[in-house]
Amino acid sequence: METYNHTKSKEYFKRATKVIPAGIYGHLGPAEGCFIPVEAFPFYSQRAQGAYFWDVDGNRYIDYMCAYGPNVLGYNDPDVDRAALEQLQLGNCVTLPSVKMIELAELLVDTVTMADWAFFAKNGGDATSLALMTARAATGRPKTILVKGGYHGVAPWTQKLGYPGITEADTINNLYVEWNDIDQLEKTIVENKDQIACFMATPYHHPIFEDSQMPADGYWEKARKLCTDNGIVLAIDDVRCGFRLDMAGSDHYFGFKADLVCFCKALANGWNMSALCGIEALKDAASSVLYTGSYWLSSVPFAASIATLNKLKKMNGPQTLLAKGKKLTDGLQQIGKNHGFDLKISGAPSLWYMRITNDDSLMLHQEWVAECVKRGVFFANHHNLFINMALSDEDMEYTLAVADEAFQLLKKKHPEIA
Amino acid sequence: METYNHTKSKEYFKRATKVIPAGIYGHLGPAEGCFIPVEAFPFYSQRAQGAYFWDVDGNRYIDYMCAYGPNVLGYNDPDVDRAALEQLQLGNCVTLPSVKMIELAELLVDTVTMADWAFFAKNGGDATSLALMTARAATGRPKTILVKGGYHGVAPWTQKLGYPGITEADTINNLYVEWNDIDQLEKTIVENKDQIACFMATPYHHPIFEDSQMPADGYWEKARKLCTDNGIVLAIDDVRCGFRLDMAGSDHYFGFKADLVCFCKALANGWNMSALCGIEALKDAASSVLYTGSYWLSSVPFAASIATLNKLKKMNGPQTLLAKGKKLTDGLQQIGKNHGFDLKISGAPSLWYMRITNDDSLMLHQEWVAECVKRGVFFANHHNLFINMALSDEDMEYTLAVADEAFQLLKKKHPEIA
Repeated sequence: METYNHTKSKEYFKRATKVIPAGIYGHLGPAEGCFIPVEAFPFYSQRAQGAYFWDVDGNRYIDYMCAYGPNVLGYNDPDVDRAALEQLQLGNCVTLPSVKMIELAELLVDTVTMADWAFFAKNGGDATSLALMTARAATGRPKTILVKGGYHGVAPWTQKLGYPGITEADTINNLYVEWNDIDQLEKTIVENKDQIACFMATPYHHPIFEDSQMPADGYWEKARKLCTDNGIVLAIDDVRCGFRLDMAGSDHYFGFKADLVCFCKALANGWNMSALCGIEALKDAASSVLYTGSYWLSSVPFAASIATLNKLKKMNGPQTLLAKGKKLTDGLQQIGKNHGFDLKISGAPSLWYMRITNDDSLMLHQEWVAECVKRGVFFANHHNLFINMALSDEDMEYTLAVADEAFQLLKKKHPEIA
Repeated sequence: METYNHTKSKEYFKRATKVIPAGIYGHLGPAEGCFIPVEAFPFYSQRAQGAYFWDVDGNRYIDYMCAYGPNVLGYNDPDVDRAALEQLQLGNCVTLPSVKMIELAELLVDTVTMADWAFFAKNGGDATSLALMTARAATGRPKTILVKGGYHGVAPWTQKLGYPGITEADTINNLYVEWNDIDQLEKTIVENKDQIACFMATPYHHPIFEDSQMPADGYWEKARKLCTDNGIVLAIDDVRCGFRLDMAGSDHYFGFKADLVCFCKALANGWNMSALCGIEALKDAASSVLYTGSYWLSSVPFAASIATLNKLKKMNGPQTLLAKGKKLTDGLQQIGKNHGFDLKISGAPSLWYMRITNDDSLMLHQEWVAECVKRGVFFANHHNLFINMALSDEDMEYTLAVADEAFQLLKKKHPEIA
């Protein structure tokens, strides 16, 4: 296979660094999110459709990052975009919301088992911050228990002391526990009696640079009981997993009921939308918090979100995504094995994590990913990957062919390893 | 004139309260932002066009809230929406950004005098929080000076101790000064030597429930010098005023140069977009901060923002908005006077504040606003109002006629006051 070149991307990036900090910042940038070697990184997309995007040099990629989650039905899904454009004809960001807001709240309450109400914002972090404040308002307590390595956005309270711009006060009310360690959770609760407003965690653990970890048997049952017994709000950050495991919520998937659930990524197929869902007992606390934003009640994303959720429900979205992911990751693992590489797959197949275990430094894995990207299969290093509904069997076959070639190349370059 | 009824709005609101905290939360809700008596409040919009929106009962309003700022060119501006839809055909929220991001950064750097770079996000509060963290990262200092009564979003650090969900740690690094009080600013700086990262303020003071206050002669010159002399980052929250005073930035309008400027409201005519602009010396600090969001690099809002800024520049947007606002507020004031009411106008005419001074409780003003709203002129109480480019002379004449009838009514009901 021919490998791609990124002449135009590199030129644009040079232009960008003059007027944008880091050129491309955050999780879409070459430095932070993808950790793809710069020589293989395409920098800018020109267009996207279904399961693909094309970079500015005209190269096509089968996209397993899915915009880091939002692409769940396929880019430019016609049903979602039609709903969005119909609403746009009427109005988007207006002085008063439209009734689409009510319809979306009703749909979420119907769809998500734990939800008695929904509150809408723009970022996943808007939802996690509201969850934090709602829990504090409801309990009158200051502290929050978080899982080490968990990601809940970029608000100062979600960051770590020592990170640029973060002060001691920002994280002083955070307590950290290891994932799946119920004894440590209990100990932390006992040691901070009547101080803990909230335990916030993802439904399963999906840190970067590490294997994903599913909840241990009985973990959520016990954690739920500890929270209930101690008057602690159990908040699930379902920003990444939401609607890729279960339309009824990832807490439902794992057999427990959260008090608050944060949604974002797959909520509106790329239109700007996040939501906090909650139980009735926390509704007044949520409305007591001063919380609002310029575009939060814009109608176009509500219309897009309604269309997205309805289509996902109709198509059995999560089951389909899990099945597609299983098929693909089984294939990838087998091909690795054929060449003497152990490609470890972890997490749910609809948003799996993978790494070549033959090399602990992860550099071998990075090399393999770079060879895949150069051949039109967009994986990111050290971050979980995503499946979307538009991904076809042919796309998966093509992916496996590329993976095969990349493994062959890797074996040739590192005969001592495989 | 006939007054409106809101039968359908009331029915929808009842439905909403079941599934949404407070029914409509935040600044678009009846409780918080508008402070319009509920019997006059239309709750939900059905559609919007140009300077108008229609509520779900079919009543038309000349809209002086402009979605609390975003509507600057007129709702559904054809040029902005065409640019947005052209980009939508290509892609919106994709794994890699499009070059529209670079083009918008270049346009801001060309347009805004102080800007050497731009960073994009979704909420105004995303920009103010990044300004705070950038200033802290650049200086290694923890504290921020804010103006009492200023509004910089809803992140915990922007709120007040005692507000629901807020802990002591959230605001412990904030110091507060009175607007226009240069001596107090200097004293605060001296008392917190080498502790202050940032002085953040709006270009002029526009709190709610109070008259707006322009900067006193020499205020910004002196404040700028104090910041420079003490190594403090001067951050301007131009979220509300931005591009309604001066395309080159509101700091430029008032004759000084800020280090950081936050934009949002008028940046993309209602498409989700906010930006932090900064000087070259702060570029590395900005890129050192861990800061990203799911939809921040989506391309459709970039395309909309480019079209908005170009159209505003071509039409001399700020000058036109200021002139329209001057004409309207002069007219309103004169009509009030004719009926014995002193309608005080403060702030820039493109986003003026007004109140009837005959009654200090502001209840008389609220009554007058309610009568205007019931007749199709949407003012909010106790919040500044906004002008948009689609507002016509006929709209202003109609507004004056409504204001006249509302003042007459007020005089009849309160003969002892006027």
